[in-house]
Amino acid sequence: MNADYLRLRELLAEVQDLGAAQALLEWDQRTMMPARGSAARAEALATIVRLGFERFASDEIGALLDALGPWAADLPYESDEASLVRVTRREYDKARRVPATLKAEIARTAAIAGDAWIEARKASDFPAFRPHLERMVALKREYAACLAAPGTDLYDALLDDYEPGLTAAAATRMFDALRSGLVPLLGRIRERAGAVDERVLAGRFPADRQRAFCLSVLRAIGFDDDGFRLDVSAHPFETRMAAGDVRMTTRYDEGRLADALFGCIHELGHGLYESGVDPALARTPLDRGTSMGIHESQSRLWENVVGRGLPFWRFFYPKLQEAFPEPFACLPLETFWRAINRVEPSLIRVEADEVTYNLHVLLRFELERGLIGGDLVPADLPAAWNARMREYLGIAVPDDRRGVLQDIHWSQGDFGYFPTYTLGNVIASQLWERARAEVPGLEAAIEAGEFAPLRRWLHAAIHHHGAKFTGEELLARVTGRGADPAPYLAYLEGKYGAVYGG
Amino acid sequence: MNADYLRLRELLAEVQDLGAAQALLEWDQRTMMPARGSAARAEALATIVRLGFERFASDEIGALLDALGPWAADLPYESDEASLVRVTRREYDKARRVPATLKAEIARTAAIAGDAWIEARKASDFPAFRPHLERMVALKREYAACLAAPGTDLYDALLDDYEPGLTAAAATRMFDALRSGLVPLLGRIRERAGAVDERVLAGRFPADRQRAFCLSVLRAIGFDDDGFRLDVSAHPFETRMAAGDVRMTTRYDEGRLADALFGCIHELGHGLYESGVDPALARTPLDRGTSMGIHESQSRLWENVVGRGLPFWRFFYPKLQEAFPEPFACLPLETFWRAINRVEPSLIRVEADEVTYNLHVLLRFELERGLIGGDLVPADLPAAWNARMREYLGIAVPDDRRGVLQDIHWSQGDFGYFPTYTLGNVIASQLWERARAEVPGLEAAIEAGEFAPLRRWLHAAIHHHGAKFTGEELLARVTGRGADPAPYLAYLEGKYGAVYGG
Repeated sequence: MNADYLRLRELLAEVQDLGAAQALLEWDQRTMMPARGSAARAEALATIVRLGFERFASDEIGALLDALGPWAADLPYESDEASLVRVTRREYDKARRVPATLKAEIARTAAIAGDAWIEARKASDFPAFRPHLERMVALKREYAACLAAPGTDLYDALLDDYEPGLTAAAATRMFDALRSGLVPLLGRIRERAGAVDERVLAGRFPADRQRAFCLSVLRAIGFDDDGFRLDVSAHPFETRMAAGDVRMTTRYDEGRLADALFGCIHELGHGLYESGVDPALARTPLDRGTSMGIHESQSRLWENVVGRGLPFWRFFYPKLQEAFPEPFACLPLETFWRAINRVEPSLIRVEADEVTYNLHVLLRFELERGLIGGDLVPADLPAAWNARMREYLGIAVPDDRRGVLQDIHWSQGDFGYFPTYTLGNVIASQLWERARAEVPGLEAAIEAGEFAPLRRWLHAAIHHHGAKFTGEELLARVTGRGADPAPYLAYLEGKYGAVYGG
Repeated sequence: MNADYLRLRELLAEVQDLGAAQALLEWDQRTMMPARGSAARAEALATIVRLGFERFASDEIGALLDALGPWAADLPYESDEASLVRVTRREYDKARRVPATLKAEIARTAAIAGDAWIEARKASDFPAFRPHLERMVALKREYAACLAAPGTDLYDALLDDYEPGLTAAAATRMFDALRSGLVPLLGRIRERAGAVDERVLAGRFPADRQRAFCLSVLRAIGFDDDGFRLDVSAHPFETRMAAGDVRMTTRYDEGRLADALFGCIHELGHGLYESGVDPALARTPLDRGTSMGIHESQSRLWENVVGRGLPFWRFFYPKLQEAFPEPFACLPLETFWRAINRVEPSLIRVEADEVTYNLHVLLRFELERGLIGGDLVPADLPAAWNARMREYLGIAVPDDRRGVLQDIHWSQGDFGYFPTYTLGNVIASQLWERARAEVPGLEAAIEAGEFAPLRRWLHAAIHHHGAKFTGEELLARVTGRGADPAPYLAYLEGKYGAVYGG
């Protein structure tokens, strides 16, 4: 084996170990850490992030990549070695363009702003959060300026962090295509709004029994207690320390079963992806999901395409009726299924139905483009938010807690992340179309509570490759095409025709 | 401010941040981590530990300490600045005298010997453990030789890792004094063995109710939910990420209330110490307890002197009776109090009472001194252990599992650690004597459930100083003396006279 390659792997393994420590410090902060630990945690995180960055963006790694370039070019494109050199080169070049001090400052600000966001959201107090947001916008503009090619959109440079190669122009085209299909669909649905009654889902669902039921569903799908955890946090997320150490979180609203249940299935989609990476890629930058678009395709596929599907509930509904006789014992399956798929413009993105969800994302995409482009200042954000909520969803925002303060992303500097949710929806439908074509009896298996066929197909097609291919490359390998909203629109037309049909 | 000093603090802050990450990785491994995460966790920990060591033992820190020596010498001894330079110098010199390869070999051997110890203990098979112990003894002799001044005892160099300045000669004097008091006391107690019946404590104590009761006690003493956590682990411990982020663990035996309860109070003693360090010392090597002897004095003081005292239970016993009517509703307070203080020579150190505990430590001290000094070879260890158990405690050891294989310490190379347990007992009584002299109404306050007076006195006397002073210096500042077994013996005589008295 090439000695330079071995040395590169050794150095990258250190960087990954620092990344694992960072992931744990962040997970712990949001799930376990006592409140008074936050200032010290911000310092520790800043140091770990900076050390990881310094070691990654080192001259030695640059020299090794230079030396390995010709060697890797002669290897098959999809080999682990060529992929590692290629992906590391791309990330190294980006890393070298951002000063370590700036990266550390963003991490430090994110830790403080995250805590401030929690408090501000509780109190519905945007002005308390505003200075943190202003600081973060300024830092991320500075960050984007390090990466953007001259004359290009600063926002494109941020998109690239979550979905390499995605541009604001391409995202705009995707949203345009979706909007032109979704708006008439939403119109037809609203004409038949009376066909679905969500009130049948009302009940009292104690948190401990919700947790038990969620875990029983998760375990059936592929959650394994030796490799996964499920905890509580203010904002649900999934993270991982290693392939065998996946951490998911949720939150329980005792008046609503659906939030935690579908949230858990969503996070498990992420978790299965990250736990399924080829062990040969451990402690390399390839040992992760390749892009947020692909990541969200996994979570959305499990949450919506599978988890809100009729076959899934043909299996689980009797179990749900047993776990919560009140209100489900006498409620017919189809009435339940329609209710969990009710379409209704609403305030909260993470609780939105599949049809209106992308409109929530669209408004965030437009607003964050404005913030990063400088056309919108944080002080004007609540008003801009509320105006778009009226325009796209036809509803009035009663307070900032249920408006502009609802998501954690901006406090963490994650501008450019939101569009990947919609991209994930689009890709999920493309993958679902392929899986149905390639796995005989896929829906019958789901109806029998057998999730291994789909899990295995996704593992071979997506999970196993880790970050060897970009999202775009991976999608082309699996479907022969790029991201295409058509299967997603067709899926929504078909499903919601059935949900709201006669 | 001196620029070299600021730079030193900056570098040391990084090292502390790596230490905080290490503490979290270790805590998580023992409390939260899914089983399949362990291989990756070992890699991450090894990297974090190595990076912390490399950054601490760097040439730059050495040059800064050289430059700062004369400056610090002109500052008051107890100033933060002089203390930081002095303590860092001492630790730096030790760090530089041990080759990194030897440290790595000790860590590697500890990992292997730890696994071997678990298996050997299960099978009560000392010969299977012996080669690992031989290897570890050889390595720790080599390690001690790097640190010991010419002509001094190798074992002293090991003691210094846990209690700077403590020598085998001083420890021997302490144990001699203790033995001459404890042996006759134990004899008198055994004559009155029938006065105390432990069986009155038998009952069923569900884990969730134990946890609730323990937390109510801990909160009364000083556990605060914004700065502390209490979780479950196989072996109870306390660790901290920062002054405001203390993590304690316990384990619940549903047939025995006392283990978790007194274990929790013990760990809280450590936690209060580490949470009380002056915030001005944050992110420096002074931001911790100064030595194991002082640390154990805190945990033992709260666990035994306070927590097993009659005033404490005058306040808490009615609450315990309410929490566990069965078996306590009709059991008189004094009978309960005698039962939790029952003295009985037994095989296992961690289950021993206050009187016999130090005899367990004494025999370990003598045996490990022999191992490191070369007077005792590991092959002869079981026989030597069993002979001393007969001599000091009057009991026969039925097998090595309950004898020489019971403690993990030697497999980890922790020779020199045991004596600090007894030193902690001794210091606890000295501190208690001072606290009673300086805090009017101390016992009346405890009897009223008011722990702030003792906590505040300990904070000012001990906690606040962090690691600025050695244990010896600190004790001299507070009591005007060195470690002195007399108050401890007087305390035991008084207490056990009452427990076993007529």
